[in-house]
Amino acid sequence: MYRTHTCGELRATNVNQVVTLAGWVQTIRKFGSITFVDLRDRYGITQLLFGESLISLLDEQPLGREYVIQATGTVVERTNKNPNMLTGDIEIEIQTFAILNKAVTPPFTIQDDTDGGDDLRMKYRYLDLRRNAVKRNLQLRYAVNRSARNYLHENNFMDIETPFLIKSTPEGARDFVVPSRMNPGQFYALPQSPQTFKQLLMVSGYDRYYQVVKCFRDEDLRADRQPEFTQIDCEMSFVAQEDILNMFEGLIKQIFLDVKNIDYNQTIERMTWNDAMLHYGNDKPDIRFEMKVANLKTVFEGETGNAAATSLFENSGFKVFNDAETVLAISVPGCSEYTRKQTDELTEWVKRPQIGMNGLVYIRCNTDGTYKSSVDKFFDESSLKTLADICGAKVGDLILILAGREERTRKATSELRLEMGERLGLRRKDEFKLLWVLDFPLFEYAEDENRWVARHHPFTAPKPDHIPVMIGNDPTINNPAEYLSHPYANIKANAYDMVLNGNEIGGGSIRIYQRELQEKMFDALGMSREEALHKFGFLLGAFEYGAPPHGGIAFGFDRLCAILGGSESIRDFIAFPKNNSGRDTMLDAPGSIDEKQLTELCIQLQPTQ
Amino acid sequence: MYRTHTCGELRATNVNQVVTLAGWVQTIRKFGSITFVDLRDRYGITQLLFGESLISLLDEQPLGREYVIQATGTVVERTNKNPNMLTGDIEIEIQTFAILNKAVTPPFTIQDDTDGGDDLRMKYRYLDLRRNAVKRNLQLRYAVNRSARNYLHENNFMDIETPFLIKSTPEGARDFVVPSRMNPGQFYALPQSPQTFKQLLMVSGYDRYYQVVKCFRDEDLRADRQPEFTQIDCEMSFVAQEDILNMFEGLIKQIFLDVKNIDYNQTIERMTWNDAMLHYGNDKPDIRFEMKVANLKTVFEGETGNAAATSLFENSGFKVFNDAETVLAISVPGCSEYTRKQTDELTEWVKRPQIGMNGLVYIRCNTDGTYKSSVDKFFDESSLKTLADICGAKVGDLILILAGREERTRKATSELRLEMGERLGLRRKDEFKLLWVLDFPLFEYAEDENRWVARHHPFTAPKPDHIPVMIGNDPTINNPAEYLSHPYANIKANAYDMVLNGNEIGGGSIRIYQRELQEKMFDALGMSREEALHKFGFLLGAFEYGAPPHGGIAFGFDRLCAILGGSESIRDFIAFPKNNSGRDTMLDAPGSIDEKQLTELCIQLQPTQ
Repeated sequence: MYRTHTCGELRATNVNQVVTLAGWVQTIRKFGSITFVDLRDRYGITQLLFGESLISLLDEQPLGREYVIQATGTVVERTNKNPNMLTGDIEIEIQTFAILNKAVTPPFTIQDDTDGGDDLRMKYRYLDLRRNAVKRNLQLRYAVNRSARNYLHENNFMDIETPFLIKSTPEGARDFVVPSRMNPGQFYALPQSPQTFKQLLMVSGYDRYYQVVKCFRDEDLRADRQPEFTQIDCEMSFVAQEDILNMFEGLIKQIFLDVKNIDYNQTIERMTWNDAMLHYGNDKPDIRFEMKVANLKTVFEGETGNAAATSLFENSGFKVFNDAETVLAISVPGCSEYTRKQTDELTEWVKRPQIGMNGLVYIRCNTDGTYKSSVDKFFDESSLKTLADICGAKVGDLILILAGREERTRKATSELRLEMGERLGLRRKDEFKLLWVLDFPLFEYAEDENRWVARHHPFTAPKPDHIPVMIGNDPTINNPAEYLSHPYANIKANAYDMVLNGNEIGGGSIRIYQRELQEKMFDALGMSREEALHKFGFLLGAFEYGAPPHGGIAFGFDRLCAILGGSESIRDFIAFPKNNSGRDTMLDAPGSIDEKQLTELCIQLQPTQ
Repeated sequence: MYRTHTCGELRATNVNQVVTLAGWVQTIRKFGSITFVDLRDRYGITQLLFGESLISLLDEQPLGREYVIQATGTVVERTNKNPNMLTGDIEIEIQTFAILNKAVTPPFTIQDDTDGGDDLRMKYRYLDLRRNAVKRNLQLRYAVNRSARNYLHENNFMDIETPFLIKSTPEGARDFVVPSRMNPGQFYALPQSPQTFKQLLMVSGYDRYYQVVKCFRDEDLRADRQPEFTQIDCEMSFVAQEDILNMFEGLIKQIFLDVKNIDYNQTIERMTWNDAMLHYGNDKPDIRFEMKVANLKTVFEGETGNAAATSLFENSGFKVFNDAETVLAISVPGCSEYTRKQTDELTEWVKRPQIGMNGLVYIRCNTDGTYKSSVDKFFDESSLKTLADICGAKVGDLILILAGREERTRKATSELRLEMGERLGLRRKDEFKLLWVLDFPLFEYAEDENRWVARHHPFTAPKPDHIPVMIGNDPTINNPAEYLSHPYANIKANAYDMVLNGNEIGGGSIRIYQRELQEKMFDALGMSREEALHKFGFLLGAFEYGAPPHGGIAFGFDRLCAILGGSESIRDFIAFPKNNSGRDTMLDAPGSIDEKQLTELCIQLQPTQ
């Protein structure tokens, strides 16, 4: 044994014990003939005292930062106690020590605020992982993992491993593929999720399944995406939507309790997708703050917006509003006295390419009861007051109005809302607000292919009322311009997303479990009968042998951890993440492989063009 | 909610309650106007009684085997109680029911003893998974998983996920590779184990790591191998071998207790690799029974065997023994009266190509104290007695003797020992005997390449005493014929295998943690400095920044489950296994991929030759 105790456990009650510790040298301080060393391990830091008798030994074997040492000595009470350290009441008077391994100077400082840039820290991730900030993240991740497993276990869920080498069924995201040496010219795919397997397990009667499982998507990486990511993947039989919502509200509340010591005893709000889009411009609204979107004018899902506002626009002569498909507003509390500079800056903000608007109109709801806007030429004060009332604005609010094409304007308004929430400090990292978003459209229309695509995935069931609509209608879109009036456009999915602080942390659905309906779905997606059988014949087959009603959910484990940890970046919560080019710079992977390997796999590289 | 209770929970105390169950129709029996249905779900079976009032409804909606139904009724006490069923005291008098899904006739019977062959059951694995036998296996697997996680958690281990898309470092087994679209011409590899990552985590100070993790090896598949398999992977810092053995004895004992309700309170025996090979012919001996190998003559690791026996052979004129490199014997208890037919059959058994011996010599230690052998021409009775004494044979034993080349003879003797143990019923599936095998050779000699290869893997440390031998000697083998006399041939690894009933269930080692020694290891394996840096530069680098002494172990989770479940086949304990050609016949994977996918990945298939 290299140690009798860890560096986190000794207290005043251990005084006079002879102990051996092992760990990393965090700091070395010399006072005359005495040397103090802070020794660190995973569990904490303990102060070691090297007295006069060890001077010559320390000269022979000088210690350095990050050296790994083993030291034996007696626990003594400190004269200068440190109340900020759990071991701050004691120190160890060292009798003997040994250097277990030396350390060269690290390429960046191993401290909470490091001087290492992203690239350097990734290349030396094993050093970055020593930093408290990163260690706390991984500990939180493990705590979430543990909490979820315990809850699911207590609720009769079974962890069942599903395969990683499966079949490529291009649909949705791109698969990573794996050439098979034993089946030359053929490829496995890595799973994008264990979706079909967990459904088969329900057909097999396993009733409640879970897995904390790696999934893979070969998509172009944006800031917060990883080619491999982890899901908490769950499925249940003999359930309707309500049962699933209840079960997984329980899960998330348990996680809050175990990991954050938060008793999340509020009812979790439920919102339809339509309402989320209308009132927040977004299908994953951050409801930590209000500032709802006022739909002055809109074409969203056949809505028209506010009649009084529309008529005001018509009579105003302000073409920007009158010609716009959509005019949306938010009322920002307490900002009526924004300076011209501030409103100009906001205008620039919405004009940035990421937001893409042409401009911003504002109305000040002054504290003296007057109204003032950037479009006073077109709207008299009474019209401004009318608009303010329609927006539900209060005295002291600054109303921000965006106008343009429906989709872009809605998205921009949502972004602007979040930005203003951020600026006003309404998006507190230590406040957590959960939300279910329900009743998503089952289909989206893919203009380029003139066909329906599944919004969630092709195994999602329509809401019970909408099943007859799906079965009773031909999915063919005869007139692309009028796809919105096709009966399929109004079919809602029996699906649900769990949203936390404006982030989708989980999503799922009640599944189709009848062969006929599943075939209709494939048909609706433009898949031929042959193609459907080739790709999903096993599932269609399974549905014929007694498939129970079932549904499930998958939580994005990386993201869930990040949000619980108060961060936007999932990368900080993954031990060995990849960069935006999908590279592991520490390993220098991916890399080239031998000609021999290629030959064995019966593949070759495409000649460079 | 589709049900108020499961099919496993209703008891006499529930009588008079109105309940709703949902599940699969297991059997249908009609008695006049009454129909009994056994309804099955994951939790059990409950008898449903459909009375006279439901006759017409059952005529309209006839039930069939494996139909999924929902039924509501009143719990009543049975007149004919079934003490073999947990729900056998009650039945449900059904008031209403609904067919949730129909089922066509399954391709094989879903019963403990199915009529389905392997291929059929694999193609319809989702039906096979309904069978009790398979369900029990997966439940046991989950119980082992859960038990291991709990034990490791209580001992401060942290589950940390390591990446799946890593770098190919051909060494040992073949990697599965994954072409990278974003890095054209480059490939990821799937991990054969998280070895280097868990070591880096130790360098990072995580102290105690575990993971239940999929690993991948692209090897030709033998009966009991899968291209993807699961390990319980663990690593600890600041430990010596003894610490690891203690920790993981605790783990396996906990698993026995939790999963098998066995209090394994015996000391776990420890045996050196040398002793295992000498006395059992095998590095993973089944010690549920004795029947040790007598080394009458041998060249194993410089041993010579028994001098008296050798001299007897010299004087016997029996060239088979006298010319043989190795003569090994086992004494099979109580078999002295085997018939000629039986000994002939045993001779045929050892001559099978899998065993590959030329013949078998036997000595009967008759119950009347006389000796009789198949080589009476060469050995008089006193010589036979001498041999029997050397073998430690007792009255009533049948001594079986094999002779030939060292390696083959030893292996054959081991196989014969296991076969005789099996025939005598000494290998009881409900008896469990654990064993540590220690002190493996660090290196093996690869004749074809005239170099050393790592027996375990290149990160395994030599035993502490042997480190100076490794550092102090040049690994070059000048004379291939005399490799055994090279100092490296005698270096023992600081490694350990856990053996259960003759199967290796886990293995690990104390690792090298000094850059210099690791470089020497790569050097010894014939890896150039450049190659070592290219493949493992990150690890060599990590060792310079304060690497603690560490070691670990990995358990073969599939095999562990199989043995605990009393089976030899890991496939029965994997939800969706692959066949011997690495195919998933249910999915029909691997399969071909689109030309578009190939193009995106910048690879092409090799033209067929």
